[in-house]
Amino acid sequence: MQHSHSFLSFSTESLLSELSEDQLLEILFKDMHKPGPGIVGIGDDCAVVRAEKDNLYYLFKVDATLENVHFEPSSPAELIGRKALARALSDIAAMGGDPLYVLVGIGINKNEKIGKIKKIYEGINALAQSFGLLIIGGETTLSEQLFLVISIWGKTEGYKPILRSGATDGDSLFVTGVLGGSFDCGHHLLFIPKIKEGKWLAQGQWATAMMDISDGLAKDLPRMARASAIGFEIDFDEVPVRKGYSIKNALTDGEDYELLFSVAKEKEETLLENWPFEIPLKKIGFFSKKGKLDFPDEFRGFDHFQKS
Amino acid sequence: MQHSHSFLSFSTESLLSELSEDQLLEILFKDMHKPGPGIVGIGDDCAVVRAEKDNLYYLFKVDATLENVHFEPSSPAELIGRKALARALSDIAAMGGDPLYVLVGIGINKNEKIGKIKKIYEGINALAQSFGLLIIGGETTLSEQLFLVISIWGKTEGYKPILRSGATDGDSLFVTGVLGGSFDCGHHLLFIPKIKEGKWLAQGQWATAMMDISDGLAKDLPRMARASAIGFEIDFDEVPVRKGYSIKNALTDGEDYELLFSVAKEKEETLLENWPFEIPLKKIGFFSKKGKLDFPDEFRGFDHFQKS
Repeated sequence: MQHSHSFLSFSTESLLSELSEDQLLEILFKDMHKPGPGIVGIGDDCAVVRAEKDNLYYLFKVDATLENVHFEPSSPAELIGRKALARALSDIAAMGGDPLYVLVGIGINKNEKIGKIKKIYEGINALAQSFGLLIIGGETTLSEQLFLVISIWGKTEGYKPILRSGATDGDSLFVTGVLGGSFDCGHHLLFIPKIKEGKWLAQGQWATAMMDISDGLAKDLPRMARASAIGFEIDFDEVPVRKGYSIKNALTDGEDYELLFSVAKEKEETLLENWPFEIPLKKIGFFSKKGKLDFPDEFRGFDHFQKS
Repeated sequence: MQHSHSFLSFSTESLLSELSEDQLLEILFKDMHKPGPGIVGIGDDCAVVRAEKDNLYYLFKVDATLENVHFEPSSPAELIGRKALARALSDIAAMGGDPLYVLVGIGINKNEKIGKIKKIYEGINALAQSFGLLIIGGETTLSEQLFLVISIWGKTEGYKPILRSGATDGDSLFVTGVLGGSFDCGHHLLFIPKIKEGKWLAQGQWATAMMDISDGLAKDLPRMARASAIGFEIDFDEVPVRKGYSIKNALTDGEDYELLFSVAKEKEETLLENWPFEIPLKKIGFFSKKGKLDFPDEFRGFDHFQKS
């Protein structure tokens, strides 16, 4: 059932634009130094390291946010900073973790105005404070294109982080919030990372697998299925679509930063009864040994490397 | 004795090119969420967090390496990758730490050849293996300019990390290796991070303050002096200059990645007798309450933001 790629058709002279991001990562990391015991390597929302103390796991993530990729030159500066941190927090949320510490790196064009850079940092800081999060370091470098790099360190204490690989046959598939049009409507700059929802799902042992939706359901769900070595079935009518947008938007736009997770079938009812959060929760399908490994061609998710 | 900058002359409309990197960092971080107990904030080579276990400190650093800033488009791909990791390791060395885990982020132009990217990763991996270091995660993103972001996590166990701020009146000032011409002669792509030297200096309680020289002695030593709130005296004739280069090169070129550290005057002799490493060690001056806070104007170090 494990989904496998073949890269035999790519030569070293091939251009990056001929690959998907998943393909590139697989090429780059397959020969890498192999992770040791207690380490969850490449491919989850965060890297996980078991601490020396019992039932303490550290989460570790680096994430870059770039002009003309993740925001536009005209995006408000505070919201650029806010988004950079929110994206990293969303990866911690996707593991069910608590964020602890943050390092902020920034690449800036020398013709950038100081006021804009200051506002970017204010945006980061305001979000950090609202999560009681410490910014413990930072670095600046000269670059042509404005970018932010957030390095974040989190933990789960007393419970295990939720990986993408834990879904099993029959598990129900849930998604928080609504999907689609996030970049277009500006939601991508304003979303609240689902830290408390993710932690609740992990701590209460609800979720068997979890990730955040950043590249679109049609791209991210197959990743979860592949990591869990299982197929899936989706009820397209049940996918929560943002008002004013289409099912195609919901599946392919990306930038949603909602949680996608699986729950054992027998816990499904209790989950819906006990869900304590305002954000809506929707069952959209289930995992199945006989299920699909991918979405139909018309629903291809956002891919960094194949973006025109 | 604390060196202070005045930023009153900068407005929010000022361009980045009007500031030094230190000035920018101070502007950006002065209003940031303040670090809590056990945290060493902005301004050291790594951020330091005291672990829950006694005498265990975690080191945390993010560092970006960019095309046309830290390497040239013609630099060999393996060495680009090698340098990106070596720079981050040098920051761990500067605290006297052991590196533990690494995340690798890369921003790539879509017209880049796969073979080059693969070689960059091979360079990272080879150096990681030689330090027994685990690469536990990575991410790729589309960018205009090629860049690498290394996020590294290290520790000191059984002893404290060495900060920049620990130098006191009368401490002798030492530097490893030779300085100057590093970018020009290609040393910046090939240097070996001083992990074992830094650890030995920290574990044996030799160094009172330590950092690595990345922007040039004339830029970096005043940073250490400022952090330690003390002045310094340098014997220019004692500065170890790379063959074929000048004292000005040695003070201002940067990219040396040698260790700069202070030692209590009374330990100076024993240090020189006991130094077990091949790399030469040189006393170049001392810290003094009556010492200087900066180098003469003609020896201004490399500054990212004032580079033409």
